[in-house]
This record gives sequence, structure tokens and C-alpha cells, in this order.
Amino acid sequence: MTTRNVQIVEVGPRDGFQPIEQAIPTERKIDLVARLHAAGIRRMEATAFVSPRAVPQMADAAEVLDAAHRLEGLDTQVLVPTRRYAEQAIGQGARHLAFVLSASAAHNRNNVRRSPEESADEFVELAGALPAGVRIRLNLATAFDCPFEGRIEPAQVIELIDRLQHGLPGVELCLCDTTGRTTPDAVSGLFDAIGPHLPDGCTVAFHGHDTYGLGVANALAAYHAGVDVFDASFGGLGGCPFAPGATGNVATEDLVWTFERMGIPTGIDLDALIDAATDAATIPGACPGGRVRTALAAARGRESSL
Amino acid sequence: MTTRNVQIVEVGPRDGFQPIEQAIPTERKIDLVARLHAAGIRRMEATAFVSPRAVPQMADAAEVLDAAHRLEGLDTQVLVPTRRYAEQAIGQGARHLAFVLSASAAHNRNNVRRSPEESADEFVELAGALPAGVRIRLNLATAFDCPFEGRIEPAQVIELIDRLQHGLPGVELCLCDTTGRTTPDAVSGLFDAIGPHLPDGCTVAFHGHDTYGLGVANALAAYHAGVDVFDASFGGLGGCPFAPGATGNVATEDLVWTFERMGIPTGIDLDALIDAATDAATIPGACPGGRVRTALAAARGRESSL
Repeated sequence: MTTRNVQIVEVGPRDGFQPIEQAIPTERKIDLVARLHAAGIRRMEATAFVSPRAVPQMADAAEVLDAAHRLEGLDTQVLVPTRRYAEQAIGQGARHLAFVLSASAAHNRNNVRRSPEESADEFVELAGALPAGVRIRLNLATAFDCPFEGRIEPAQVIELIDRLQHGLPGVELCLCDTTGRTTPDAVSGLFDAIGPHLPDGCTVAFHGHDTYGLGVANALAAYHAGVDVFDASFGGLGGCPFAPGATGNVATEDLVWTFERMGIPTGIDLDALIDAATDAATIPGACPGGRVRTALAAARGRESSL
Repeated sequence: MTTRNVQIVEVGPRDGFQPIEQAIPTERKIDLVARLHAAGIRRMEATAFVSPRAVPQMADAAEVLDAAHRLEGLDTQVLVPTRRYAEQAIGQGARHLAFVLSASAAHNRNNVRRSPEESADEFVELAGALPAGVRIRLNLATAFDCPFEGRIEPAQVIELIDRLQHGLPGVELCLCDTTGRTTPDAVSGLFDAIGPHLPDGCTVAFHGHDTYGLGVANALAAYHAGVDVFDASFGGLGGCPFAPGATGNVATEDLVWTFERMGIPTGIDLDALIDAATDAATIPGACPGGRVRTALAAARGRESSL
């Protein structure tokens, strides 16, 4: 079997930290970002430009972004939910934006008080007016399943993609399993279905959650459907603070373990990554997840007790 | 896509309970076995006939087996590691044996002080001399990876299968990922590779662990390779008591959730199963695992707090 390299986008410093209620000191965030970079991470969603009232954890976005920009060879993206925050991020030096909109109307309204169509039109305008040297990716949240509306039909996603057409060339479109409730057949089904609707120059990515134990299985389904770019969060951070035990993003170390054991290079040093993840798991208020970190720690414990 | 029904073999009462150091009262075991049956489980590895000195937790095998036999429509299998224990189990009324031997020499010696070839010959003799009405399955432990020897080459498994030829007709051969370190490509690869070596009337099954987060992904790879029978343990019980955090068998509820969401019938009532798993997770000394149980509990908590 031929294998292709994959690129892992470490989203822990944004998606993993964001739901943690207690403020994480900015210097700790910056230290973890640097350790992730030292472990071989070359692309990272380092922070978000969002309302500091709604998401106080991201209030230090400008500082974290500056620190990430000082790391050599790191492609740093920042999340922005609206054009206004995109402009603010660009003003602070951001060169890679991740715009988010939800396929589900209820979820999009809940996030940004707009319909998906309104957000889509906003994205197209934004993508058409980016300053030189600034790139954008599009995160399509609830592309498979919504906490309010349940399963999302592929037709609904395709309709939105058709509306987004003029904004998509040169853009990476990331389908997000926000709830963790999708399954591998649905993942391959949706990537296959959208293929013919993507304009030239539009590439794809997958953002999965492990809440129901399908994080790795869904990522592999995406890989087999041709996806090479995967979001993941070190330590599996990203669970909902109001739902103890419900872990969040698929753990970066679980994906690295899996891909590397399958002979698919990630460019990431698993041991160094796990050291950073083990540290991040101790952040007060964090809901860590993933398996590989605890399994390897247990294996090391056994060896040292022999 | 066409889907096939699957059969889940609940192995928690054997593989899940066995590593728990504190004795589980026999009546609690029997109650949980009954609740699993009430949840729709129709095949179960209920206990093991093994040395009560080596595995005191299984010392009540005869009593648990009797109780399981009283449950209507339940196909009850019991694990036996040698011919001597097989005869003991049959003497106690067992009608479905699960013989275990390891593909890895080091692991088989560690378990039963025999080479895999000696155990294979013992199995062939045993399978050829079963009383009428007694069936046997063969669990091939460390079929992919061994805690002592690392990766097991498919050629090694095939050599063993060739040696087992005369014992395999009418037998279900279960490939076991004992360490949880195999990956979906290796799972499909091995099932594909052994196919031409299986005599008529020999069927296959898969027994996976979730230690490294690949439990569901590996089971789905087996499903796509044509496997219809899957071992799993309710509550994900089956971790090593000497390795805290290293969870064990793939959780039955995670497999049921996944298959049912993919439209693949399991015949199991997820809510009733989760109730039993939630109870089992409280057994003193248990190392519960799995995701679906905690994710659904968290979701219920959110609903009730609205």
C-alpha cells in the first residue's frame, strides 16, 4: 500500500485551551506553544481573535500570536468568527486566518447570531479582500452532526459549498465533526460527495473529536478519502467544562502514534509531544483525553518496576 | 453501501474481571451476566477454567457457568488454556470452549509453559476428540503484536494456521490484538493473508483492545475485511492492574454505538448495556475504559441541567 505524508495542525492552544474556565497564564501558553514547535509541530492554531467577554481565555491572543511568530518555520493560524475579528487579527500581524462557520443554522446562530448563508457571504467577501500575504482556511463546523439539530445531511453541506464557490479557490476547507458523533462511513461519504463541488485550488482538511471513541477511526476514514491535513489537540484537550468525562478533540499523540505505526510520516517526535501533552494535562480545569499518553506512561511504569 | 449484521461476544465477565485483584462476589458476577443478557447480549465468555492459584478471580467458574446456562438463548463460552482445563470445563457442563494459544513463543511460554507448536498440537487433538454437542473456538493471542516480542509477522501466524489445519473445520478462529498496538492496515492485512489458508467451515472473529485508542478503528477494519464476530468488554474492563491508565478491551458500548450509528444491527439495547457497564465500572479495582458511557452520561447531565 502506498502511503502519503500527513500534516497535523495542532489546535490545542486554541480549541484545547478555549473551554478551560480558569485563566491559563500567558507565559504558560507561550511555553507550551514553543514545546509543541520543538516537538516538530509546523502548523498550529495558536489562538483566536474573538470577543474577550465571551471567551476570556483568548484575551491574550495578540501576545500568543507574537510569540508563535518568533518560532522558526511555524505556520501559525488564528481562528476568527467574523470579518470584524479577521480585520483585528490581520491588524495584529496574523498571516493565516481560520474562519469558522457552521453548516447547522442553530449552531451558527448560537455562535455568531447569523445564518450560515450570512456567514458564508461574509467569508466570500473576506476571502476576496485579503491583503497580500494573508491566507485563509475555512472551518465548516457541525459538517456532520450538530448538538442542536442532530445529523446534518450532505446535501446541506453541498448547498453551502456551492454558495461559497467564489471564496474557495486557494482555500483549505476543513470539515469539522464538532460533536464527535460522526462515523467513518459518513466521513468518507461526505468527502466523496463534496469533491465534485470544490473549485480548483481548494483543498480539504478534517477536524475530529474523540468524544465517542471514534477520533482515530474517523481520521483514518478521512485519510483514505484523500485528506492529508488533520487537526488535533495535544493531550486531547478540548472537552466541554460542563460535561466532565466528555473528552474533546482527538489527541495529537494518538494520531501521531497511529500514522507513524502505519508508516505514514508526520514529522513529529512522539516522546517530546507526549512530554508537552503530559504537562498540558495538568492545567487546572483541563479535561485531558487520548489513550497513547496514558498507555505509554503505564508501559514505562511497568518497565521501571521490573 | 450494504451492511451485514454483526455478533458481539461479551467477554467482560472473563477478560474484564480476570485482571481485577480484589475478589468480585460471585452473586455480583451472576447479576451482571444476567443484566448483559437482558440488554440483548446473546453470546458471552462468562468465565475461564484456569488454575485458581494463578487466577483466583476465576475460582467460581462452575457457579458462574451454571447461572449463565440458565439464561434463555445465551451462547455461553468459557476460556480454557490447555486440554486438561478443557476436560474440566466439559465435566462442569460447558458446551462452548474458547481455547487460547499465543502466536508469540515468549507469550505462550509465559502463559502455559509450552511452545505455540505444542499448544497447537494440543488444540488439534482436543478439537478432534470433543464430545457431541461441544463446540470450540480458537483465540489466537498476540496475533499482531506481543508485549515481549513486538510485531508478529503474518508469516508466523500463517505457519501456525497451517499446522492447525486438521483442527480448524467447524472452528471459529479469533485473531486477538492482545496489546492494542496493532493498526487498521495490519488488521485487514492479516485477515486477508490468512483467508486462503483457512479450511472450509472455519470462520473468523476479532478481539481488539483500546489501549492506544485504536479499538474501534481496528474493529471496523476487521469488519471491512469480512469479519462479523467481535469480542468486546462492557465498561471497557480488562486493563492491567499493574498499569493504571492503560485501559484494556474495546468497550462493548463503544462498538454497539459505532455499529448502530453506521446502520449495522447488533441486537443490543445500548441504554441497558450502559447501565450494566456503569455498574461494572464501580467494581473495586476495576480499570474501566471506553468513551460512549462517559459521553452519554455527560450529555444526560447537560440535558438535566437545562
